[in-house]
Amino acid sequence: MTTSYLPELTDAAVPLIAEVTVLDEAGREKTVHIPGERPLTVFVDKVELVTLMTIGGAPEALVLGYLKNQRFVQALEEIVSIQVDWDVEAAVVVTREGIARLKERQEKRTVTTGCGQGTIFGDILTDLDAVKLNNDSKLHQHTLVEIVDQIRQHRSIYKQAGSVHGCALFRGTEMLMFVEDVGRHNAVDAIAGKMWLEGMRGDDLVFYTTGRLTSEMVIKGAQMGIPFLLSRSGVTQMGLDMARRVGLTLFGRCSGEHFLLYSGTQRFIPSREGG
Amino acid sequence: MTTSYLPELTDAAVPLIAEVTVLDEAGREKTVHIPGERPLTVFVDKVELVTLMTIGGAPEALVLGYLKNQRFVQALEEIVSIQVDWDVEAAVVVTREGIARLKERQEKRTVTTGCGQGTIFGDILTDLDAVKLNNDSKLHQHTLVEIVDQIRQHRSIYKQAGSVHGCALFRGTEMLMFVEDVGRHNAVDAIAGKMWLEGMRGDDLVFYTTGRLTSEMVIKGAQMGIPFLLSRSGVTQMGLDMARRVGLTLFGRCSGEHFLLYSGTQRFIPSREGG
Repeated sequence: MTTSYLPELTDAAVPLIAEVTVLDEAGREKTVHIPGERPLTVFVDKVELVTLMTIGGAPEALVLGYLKNQRFVQALEEIVSIQVDWDVEAAVVVTREGIARLKERQEKRTVTTGCGQGTIFGDILTDLDAVKLNNDSKLHQHTLVEIVDQIRQHRSIYKQAGSVHGCALFRGTEMLMFVEDVGRHNAVDAIAGKMWLEGMRGDDLVFYTTGRLTSEMVIKGAQMGIPFLLSRSGVTQMGLDMARRVGLTLFGRCSGEHFLLYSGTQRFIPSREGG
Repeated sequence: MTTSYLPELTDAAVPLIAEVTVLDEAGREKTVHIPGERPLTVFVDKVELVTLMTIGGAPEALVLGYLKNQRFVQALEEIVSIQVDWDVEAAVVVTREGIARLKERQEKRTVTTGCGQGTIFGDILTDLDAVKLNNDSKLHQHTLVEIVDQIRQHRSIYKQAGSVHGCALFRGTEMLMFVEDVGRHNAVDAIAGKMWLEGMRGDDLVFYTTGRLTSEMVIKGAQMGIPFLLSRSGVTQMGLDMARRVGLTLFGRCSGEHFLLYSGTQRFIPSREGG
């Protein structure tokens, strides 16, 4: 399923790594790398909406995914253009119907602080109950192990500078996307934006994140229609509750050949004899 | 400096750890612990403000710190009471002047997604430039190492269940507070709330966090007037920029006797010969 319509977008990707001089415990000067982080203020039809703190690796997709995940926009056609200009640290969004309609939605919005933003909690649950995840999609144990190994080997900002979260999207063992950002929510918003632009359905995909599987991460995964969620980290109780509620297959503590399967076992095909 | 006025508060702390059964890579059932996470919807003068996702370890302080750090309230006296009732997952806040004034401030607010919330970025920088951190306060290397060791030994939800962030406040090597929550911003908001309730100044304190030192963490630390910020994790470029801007002393990668000193070296007293 591909979308023919595409908003006009700049291509202002600037993933930054900075070199800084620090002192270690023996008083020695050391040069280390740290991830860039910069403010990107989003203006929708000339009205300031939000300032996103980002490493800048996929700013247009981030803004788009943010607008989608915060439910400001429902269809790609609502967006005429997104133009990112780092000189003024701004993303200028032009919509077809104007900011008024977006603002109406924002009024109804509240913020959740499970380390990110959300919308009114009751609404989320209602929406979540409408999500139908593909039950025919299966994940073999050897595919899972291969995915975890690919992530391990992937050239990343994290390896060079640390202090970022990464998200990736796989079809089978094929890595389709890899995004890192200073906040795990930015990374997943950028993935959501990219999927939207490419008209990509989630129902045969696997979503990997380095971050913890809190309720909001699981909700975002489910909203993207992706039946499999993998993390190097663990899960919170509500993350698990949400996963069970929508029937999502959740793996945590993925490292090497190890993992824990928390929910949605029906989609998992174990290898015989621990292969 | 102690405050005589105190709002009326419930004491609804319920830090939760849940036991769940999972499958490991060999298909064996295992019982593991995961941190609780539950929604707490904040009503201010009967108007819904926000839903916070929290482990529930310090809900009243969290709500207070959230209101303070989001700049809804400037003085403790503005708050008549905060009553948390888990049966309805609500924190009911009564203010002296009513929600109208709070809402005015909310209008001006934007949200940053450096894995948390913020306010209009320009305002933050202006406010930050007014912060004066105590330059007479010093931190000895052996005190730093002792703090890191205390954190390591501290009985925590993290050790039992993982997937939470912890924050602690120290005066010298004395641990004054320790809060864990599902989001690192919740943990720091709860610490801010507790400090406020106790009328505690930050100028001779050390703030420790397990989380990464992004711009927002550094800003919150500076806003609490604390000159020292320590983390097990690393720092982002803007976290470092902010620290330099306010002259905050920033240590990252603290582990055992190791650490990196990123900024504010004037407050650090190294041990001779790596003691």
